[in-house]
Amino acid sequence: MGMPRWESDAQGRLERAALELFETQGFDRTSVAQIAGAAGLKERSFYRYFPDKREVLFAGDELEAHLVAQVEAADPGLTAIEALLTALGTAEGIFRPREFLLRRGRVIAANPALAERDLIKLADIADALAPALERRGVEPGRARFIIDVALAIHRRALPRWLAEPDTTLAQLMDEAAAELREAVAQPVPPGR
Amino acid sequence: MGMPRWESDAQGRLERAALELFETQGFDRTSVAQIAGAAGLKERSFYRYFPDKREVLFAGDELEAHLVAQVEAADPGLTAIEALLTALGTAEGIFRPREFLLRRGRVIAANPALAERDLIKLADIADALAPALERRGVEPGRARFIIDVALAIHRRALPRWLAEPDTTLAQLMDEAAAELREAVAQPVPPGR
Repeated sequence: MGMPRWESDAQGRLERAALELFETQGFDRTSVAQIAGAAGLKERSFYRYFPDKREVLFAGDELEAHLVAQVEAADPGLTAIEALLTALGTAEGIFRPREFLLRRGRVIAANPALAERDLIKLADIADALAPALERRGVEPGRARFIIDVALAIHRRALPRWLAEPDTTLAQLMDEAAAELREAVAQPVPPGR
Repeated sequence: MGMPRWESDAQGRLERAALELFETQGFDRTSVAQIAGAAGLKERSFYRYFPDKREVLFAGDELEAHLVAQVEAADPGLTAIEALLTALGTAEGIFRPREFLLRRGRVIAANPALAERDLIKLADIADALAPALERRGVEPGRARFIIDVALAIHRRALPRWLAEPDTTLAQLMDEAAAELREAVAQPVPPGR
């Protein structure tokens, strides 16, 4: 048995090298040549996997493709939000170890350029999920709304999942959904 | 009586001139000099109000400051989400006419550079609202979650409000909140 794909392949080596360098010397002071060198590759090879330094922690469209496939394969009896929450609950940790995601989250939060890229990536994922919900018969405006809410639930659960090794993401998303249910339970007060 | 501030001042003239030019000749083909010229100003004056062309439709921090002030002044008896929804319901249309916001939304949606700026602006607003909720005693992770949900409700209501002149934003946000309440009403199915 060889190492898992991500442990052994060039793309994974570049991601781990970049994360390590961003942590130790900062995002701004790290060059593509340094990342490639630390991964045992030529600088040219870096650009086979990523268009630039900012993209190296946002590995392609793997997560987006996974989520869209999950929503498309979801039981037709599930509501839109159930289908989305189920898909999101399976997504994290499939491609990267939790330890990597935890460190990655810290590096992104500390670098405005990466935080902006993260926002745009999330919006791209939302855009990609909308047609999958529409094919389930959800009206486009409502699809986008349900996606925004599901991503908010995911965002609430993710840091707790990363910080608490004995939990599953699906379980913490269930808790966040319950928290939301309780927060919106009472109608908005009259007289607004 | 003079014209309302926004009708007469240089910043408002620049915004209207920019919107008109972005609509007729496109964002990419419009220069700062053209915007300033169409507003009857020198190019240099543009930079007194906006750092660059991309910023002209995202007028400073007026909306953010308004929302934070509203949340801070909200009745302490309101829950976090009630305080946020009330603040968001009063915010639109205060600074710009609905017609301007409708056209602005179309221009932003059609230009990736502006759509990215819009995402970042929204995240900035969320970041600014979090401390205001925390001062009301809301735990930081929960504050961010409630803000994400309130912004999702606002985003659901806004295009309908812009398209339907006989509505109020607060009324359409109430409808979106009811839609959310219904969408999350049933617990997630067992066996996840």
